[in-house]
Amino acid sequence: MEKVNIAEKLKKFSDHWNPRIVGELNEQQVKLAKLKGEFVWHSHKEEDEMFLIIKGKLKIEFRDKTVVLNENEFFIVPRGVEHKPIAEEEVHVMLFEPASTKHTGEESYKMTNNNQEFL
Amino acid sequence: MEKVNIAEKLKKFSDHWNPRIVGELNEQQVKLAKLKGEFVWHSHKEEDEMFLIIKGKLKIEFRDKTVVLNENEFFIVPRGVEHKPIAEEEVHVMLFEPASTKHTGEESYKMTNNNQEFL
Repeated sequence: MEKVNIAEKLKKFSDHWNPRIVGELNEQQVKLAKLKGEFVWHSHKEEDEMFLIIKGKLKIEFRDKTVVLNENEFFIVPRGVEHKPIAEEEVHVMLFEPASTKHTGEESYKMTNNNQEFL
Repeated sequence: MEKVNIAEKLKKFSDHWNPRIVGELNEQQVKLAKLKGEFVWHSHKEEDEMFLIIKGKLKIEFRDKTVVLNENEFFIVPRGVEHKPIAEEEVHVMLFEPASTKHTGEESYKMTNNNQEFL
C-alpha cells in the first residue's frame, strides 16, 4: 500500500524494450517501459495489452493499419492481434496486461525478457 | 481498435463522482472520472482498484492512514480495504478495476451508479 510516482520510477532505468513491473492488481500488472527503435512483430494469445503514452510518440504497426499514439493517449491491442511497436525517438509508456503475458508472444528473440523485474 | 485521447474524453462530461468507461481489457475496465468533494467510505469485496491521477491532488483516507496523490502518481487499493476519496479541488482520475466492481461497494447511496456509461 504505497503510492507510485511514475517519474521517479522512470529515473531508475534507462534500457529500452525492457519493461519494469510497478504494480499488480487483479492478476494484471502495471509496467513502465522506455522504447526506442523497432520491436518485433508478435501477438499475445490470451492477453489484451494496453499502451498508455507518458512521453513521446509511439507508432504501432498492425497488419492492416498503423496507429500513432501521442502523450496521454492509449490503445488496447486485443489478444491474438499481431503488432509491432516502433519508437523513432524515445518513448515512455505505461503498460497494463495480465501477469501471464509473454514479452514477445510465443516466439523468443534476443530482446525477449519473460522474467521482468519489479521496481 | 481505436486510440483514446484522455483530454478529449474528459471534455465530454463535467459531473463529479460518475466514472465513464473508456476501455475494456481482460475483464477489466479503464474509466475516467472527475472528482470534487468527499466520497463515501466503501470497499470492494473482490476487486483491487487503481487510481491514476491525471490532474489535481487526491486524498484517499484509509482507516489507519491518509495517502495524498499528485499528478502522475497512482495507488492500488487492495480488495476489501475501506477507503474514502476526498478532492478538495477538482481532480481528474483514471481508474482500472474489474468490470464487476460496484461503485460504492455493497452499500448504495444517492451517488451510487452501477450502470456506468461507455464514452
